Amino acid sequence: MSDDHTDPRLLAGNRRPMAGYQATHFLWTVEQGVATITLNRPERKNPLTFDSYAELRDLFHRLKWADDVKAVVVAGAGGNFSSGGDVHDIIGPLVRLKAPELLMFTRMTGELVKTMRACPQPIVAAVDGVCAGAGAIVAMASDLRLGTARSKTAFLFNRVGLAGCDMGACAILPRIVGQGRASELLYTGRSLGGEEGERWGFFNRLCEPEALLADAQALAAQLTQGPSFANGITKTMLHQEWAMTIEQAIEAEAQAQALCMLTQDFTRAYEAFVARRQPVFEGN
Amino acid sequence: MSDDHTDPRLLAGNRRPMAGYQATHFLWTVEQGVATITLNRPERKNPLTFDSYAELRDLFHRLKWADDVKAVVVAGAGGNFSSGGDVHDIIGPLVRLKAPELLMFTRMTGELVKTMRACPQPIVAAVDGVCAGAGAIVAMASDLRLGTARSKTAFLFNRVGLAGCDMGACAILPRIVGQGRASELLYTGRSLGGEEGERWGFFNRLCEPEALLADAQALAAQLTQGPSFANGITKTMLHQEWAMTIEQAIEAEAQAQALCMLTQDFTRAYEAFVARRQPVFEGN
Amino acid sequence: MSDDHTDPRLLAGNRRPMAGYQATHFLWTVEQGVATITLNRPERKNPLTFDSYAELRDLFHRLKWADDVKAVVVAGAGGNFSSGGDVHDIIGPLVRLKAPELLMFTRMTGELVKTMRACPQPIVAAVDGVCAGAGAIVAMASDLRLGTARSKTAFLFNRVGLAGCDMGACAILPRIVGQGRASELLYTGRSLGGEEGERWGFFNRLCEPEALLADAQALAAQLTQGPSFANGITKTMLHQEWAMTIEQAIEAEAQAQALCMLTQDFTRAYEAFVARRQPVFEGN
Repeated sequence: MSDDHTDPRLLAGNRRPMAGYQATHFLWTVEQGVATITLNRPERKNPLTFDSYAELRDLFHRLKWADDVKAVVVAGAGGNFSSGGDVHDIIGPLVRLKAPELLMFTRMTGELVKTMRACPQPIVAAVDGVCAGAGAIVAMASDLRLGTARSKTAFLFNRVGLAGCDMGACAILPRIVGQGRASELLYTGRSLGGEEGERWGFFNRLCEPEALLADAQALAAQLTQGPSFANGITKTMLHQEWAMTIEQAIEAEAQAQALCMLTQDFTRAYEAFVARRQPVFEGN
Repeated sequence: MSDDHTDPRLLAGNRRPMAGYQATHFLWTVEQGVATITLNRPERKNPLTFDSYAELRDLFHRLKWADDVKAVVVAGAGGNFSSGGDVHDIIGPLVRLKAPELLMFTRMTGELVKTMRACPQPIVAAVDGVCAGAGAIVAMASDLRLGTARSKTAFLFNRVGLAGCDMGACAILPRIVGQGRASELLYTGRSLGGEEGERWGFFNRLCEPEALLADAQALAAQLTQGPSFANGITKTMLHQEWAMTIEQAIEAEAQAQALCMLTQDFTRAYEAFVARRQPVFEGN
Repeated sequence: MSDDHTDPRLLAGNRRPMAGYQATHFLWTVEQGVATITLNRPERKNPLTFDSYAELRDLFHRLKWADDVKAVVVAGAGGNFSSGGDVHDIIGPLVRLKAPELLMFTRMTGELVKTMRACPQPIVAAVDGVCAGAGAIVAMASDLRLGTARSKTAFLFNRVGLAGCDMGACAILPRIVGQGRASELLYTGRSLGGEEGERWGFFNRLCEPEALLADAQALAAQLTQGPSFANGITKTMLHQEWAMTIEQAIEAEAQAQALCMLTQDFTRAYEAFVARRQPVFEGN
């Protein structure tokens, strides 16, 4: 066996490209390494269903092993992001389930957030219009969020008789917007407007509605031009260091960054600098 | 014994309604599930004393077992929130105590924050005028904060020769306003103005001074109209997940939310939605 | 042996004043307890080198045992803060190292952040012009940051093919500016402008470039007028409580604050208050 680390036999079982992947309950396209997931039931404002939850969970799990997708955009069709768990398709059945079945459901939805955080691809949410309930969670669980002035993001769980602790919201939302503002959103279920969301750091920036998807894809494309292996490590460490001490985090980063310094992308950047040209990264 | 879970015998020892509670060192009123605590020594800007600290601690501990109070407002009389630990009544004695006695005092004040975070009722602080030292801590330890443009919030411990690490401030304040801004407030002891405090996320919003108490009570009343059991779980999970990993937080939320899905409030919300009317929650 | 706790024999091995300290790879001055470190290769925008990294690390380690320096200012000469790790002096050699040597390097740079966080002196970064890579990290690892409108802070690690997880950035930056904004800076490597940085809480305030150093030194001098032992405890606890539960943090603060209540500075503050004069703190 050669020591060529790109020998495909060495990666058997690890590398699983997404080429040929077909989505059933949402749209899936890939262009130059940028995948776009479009929730696509616009007449209902793109609700999530048992099926689309599970398919999204499995998709993000699969992305962990794919290196032909470098960044992901999540968007909604027809001027809305997502209205969240469908009242008829999801809430109706849930009110009849017993404890073990309910836990299976909440674990499944929580698993979607886990797989979104565990895949190496940065995820850009393109949030226009209604972004509610589980839809707001999907936006929250993304790495970057682009909004519009008219977007309305509501963690409205308490409006349907539930707690704000859904799919990690009580842990993640306070780290994005601060504990006081997160508390307000989770206790009241009120909508967060676009401008307010930008001011709070929930949105990285606001876009014009008609440009939103293209802007999100351009941002994702920009990320794919970067060192994608290293970007994946950035994502992993943002996740890993969530509850570490500073000393633990610094040691973890020392190891992770030493690994990245062994990539050719690091050498490529150095050589490009010396030659006064832009580096071309290859993600290895 | 019947399996009716509202059978009072089943709750003996657990449920302890607040009806009839009398406060000695502050004002206490309850109206339609909203309790209002008013620090009431306006001529001294409502300082805390050994007695009022201990009484507040015991009150919030007792609220943990009460289900006839659904939300709490903390306010100050006479245009100020609280000037904090009284210099004559508290600091004077403290400078003469020895280590074990001092630790008893700092543990007692810290326990107030613990009981404020441990009771299920969301706490709304109505902050006008002076909000200093332990007063600023009580505001910080609340779930939501309404301020006024003229409010002055000062974590002034270093002005009295102490460290900023009082009653959890070094842990909690950075999560509300960010590490850099919290560091500044704790190292310098300077006052945070109302508008600045809103911009930083310390205040959820600013109110007119004359409307502040009514606004805070209206916000609290709005919370009591929500599913109060679930709101209590939101509060518990915001607290529990403070130092968890994301995976731990998501599993904890899966269990907590499954529990909430077994409440009648969840069914009430579904049935109201189907019938196109507003749900009436009962907190069970 | 007397019980005078200022007896120098009691402190032998602990107290190591900085008097006479000579810096080789940056400028070092001390005035009335305020030390100023000036990165001083202005023609190259003050890059860090292997030598200056190690010297800074050792300096901050030594500051842990010094009580004649009460606060530290870090600045750059010539209108820029620091361009970070020098491409020729650092990145060139790194691309030729093997894994164990790379880990030695990343541990050394990480150790600089650890020693900055472990010394008791509050650190004020005075950030003008370019503040990039490891320079941005040094600013981030400081307690307080003053910027200018023209300052450009870039965590540009991904521009050189590396991950954003450098020297604790994935842990510390999100706690300063929020998880979403930190993610954007670390994934894209883009510059954060001065006004944006103030709005996000990265900068405590902006100054005029010509006044920046004096403003930072004045802020540091103000801190030295406070109770410096207690301020050091504030810094320690901001660090210690990073990943504690709220209950653990409150108990830790109860112990730490009880210790501070045993200092003479606490008594001095009380006596000054009673006498209606300003306290003069001595840091003990």
